[in-house]
Amino acid sequence: MDEFTRINKFFAPLAGEAGLELKDDAAVLAPPPGRLLVLTVDQMLEGVHFLTGDDPALIARKLLRRNLSDLAAMGAAPLGYLLTIALPPSLPEEWLAGFVSGLEADQRQFGISLLGGDSSSSLRDIGLTATLIGHVAPGQALRRNGAQAGDEIWVTGTIGDAVLGLEARRGRLADPTGFLTRRSMLPNPRVGLALAGIANAAIDISDGLMQDLGHVCQASGLAAVIQANLVPISPEAAAQGPGIMELRLTGGDDYELLLAVPPEKAEALRAACTGIKITRIGVFQPGDGIELLGDGGAMFNLATSGWKHF
Amino acid sequence: MDEFTRINKFFAPLAGEAGLELKDDAAVLAPPPGRLLVLTVDQMLEGVHFLTGDDPALIARKLLRRNLSDLAAMGAAPLGYLLTIALPPSLPEEWLAGFVSGLEADQRQFGISLLGGDSSSSLRDIGLTATLIGHVAPGQALRRNGAQAGDEIWVTGTIGDAVLGLEARRGRLADPTGFLTRRSMLPNPRVGLALAGIANAAIDISDGLMQDLGHVCQASGLAAVIQANLVPISPEAAAQGPGIMELRLTGGDDYELLLAVPPEKAEALRAACTGIKITRIGVFQPGDGIELLGDGGAMFNLATSGWKHF
Repeated sequence: MDEFTRINKFFAPLAGEAGLELKDDAAVLAPPPGRLLVLTVDQMLEGVHFLTGDDPALIARKLLRRNLSDLAAMGAAPLGYLLTIALPPSLPEEWLAGFVSGLEADQRQFGISLLGGDSSSSLRDIGLTATLIGHVAPGQALRRNGAQAGDEIWVTGTIGDAVLGLEARRGRLADPTGFLTRRSMLPNPRVGLALAGIANAAIDISDGLMQDLGHVCQASGLAAVIQANLVPISPEAAAQGPGIMELRLTGGDDYELLLAVPPEKAEALRAACTGIKITRIGVFQPGDGIELLGDGGAMFNLATSGWKHF
Repeated sequence: MDEFTRINKFFAPLAGEAGLELKDDAAVLAPPPGRLLVLTVDQMLEGVHFLTGDDPALIARKLLRRNLSDLAAMGAAPLGYLLTIALPPSLPEEWLAGFVSGLEADQRQFGISLLGGDSSSSLRDIGLTATLIGHVAPGQALRRNGAQAGDEIWVTGTIGDAVLGLEARRGRLADPTGFLTRRSMLPNPRVGLALAGIANAAIDISDGLMQDLGHVCQASGLAAVIQANLVPISPEAAAQGPGIMELRLTGGDDYELLLAVPPEKAEALRAACTGIKITRIGVFQPGDGIELLGDGGAMFNLATSGWKHF
């Protein structure tokens, strides 16, 4: 199948109006009036971000969702995306069909469409990128640098499932229900929360709670104190026993949001997050670095990469 | 060097205002008021689009320029770009420094800035993508589907140099001045031409003259007649002798523009393209397919991939 047949058969049906049926050199998009555009790009590479035999539909959805999570962290609503695919010539057409079915499913779920892309052969491995375009009202983009001393630190969902799921996929721990594995392969980006005027800063937890919290501390010029036993844990993670705390706090790929919220906005936050588990885990304060308190108030000594930067 | 050090050292200095110093989850861009956005993405892969030892500064510039050429084909002015890089861990830091120097040079030359990106390790090969964002006035985007019967077919620059340059790099022909090789490695995208109201359709010649002309024919529902001896040739290509016609007409990577222009707009076209060589090579007419006329009016019989689709 040549490039044009491939585009017409698999990708043209995914194109929105701005994609011009993928028949032109570029997409033409009317930006939503009075809004700022929010743009982000992420790549997923075979052998680095996914394994060779992984379900192509889940790869497609994770590719979109990692980017959607970045938009969510900025408080932006998604519009559409551009895609690049580099596929080895030996890859069966079924792989592509599965990949496209994943894109289709998440286009419907998140109300986005394909704007354009580029398709190429690769020498060996599969390489994928998605560039997501979203929009936000002027002055309402959530930044990492807006946290204030006294803001409380909140997180959505549960923390550490994805890294445990990766461990399960590597055969290093049991995942009888498959929950942890699913959390690792199909994140649930927190798009659509109306957090402007509530959160002073936000980030998505992609590199691990400690590291991403560290980014907010650095950008905002603040320290953070968090209590390890407040960091929300899923029943499936809790079933692994107490030895996984460090892994949970430093492992990536959860794609939950971490928010800096003034104490007086806690109720507004709960209202904005109806139906989503949210948990207060600590507070920002003057200084730098992160203090991690254990049950007795002692500081954990984390030595993995998520921690080492701070 | 970890990802954050790499971004701070090499890429943060390239970021424009909308890139937020590359310190957030996404870029925030105020779209130019009253304009449509034009978006395109292209990838360049080691071993597919460039060779392992190629100058990284030229790779960077070609990556941007291929995308800038897509914007030029739509009549759009460039604003900025997002970048992904996947680099094998063994790659020396000098490669990255060279790559960034190329980005820097073309940012200055084309008035664009870095909006965001993603950096990853790769298993083996270098993989690069750029997503370019431009803008155009409503109703002024040049499309492939706007050609009218009777429109004349014009091209910018000279055609076929890049494929000859690739042949030269493979040792298959002589390139004593290096001109053909340079045309292959550093295209000159035709951005900034005010073609709205003059050209009815446009495309950039990236896949070869015959194939890209075929795209305009298909999209516009027309046939084309072109005269082979009118297709503009550089002195360096002409010095290769008469046997290269087929290669020139089907080889890619020239990144010149092909335009559909009504006969009465020829003078306006010349005025819009002051300082740029432009040449009329044929005409659109009712029907489908491309007729290629030789000196005696006979049709060439091209059998390579650029031709086979039409």
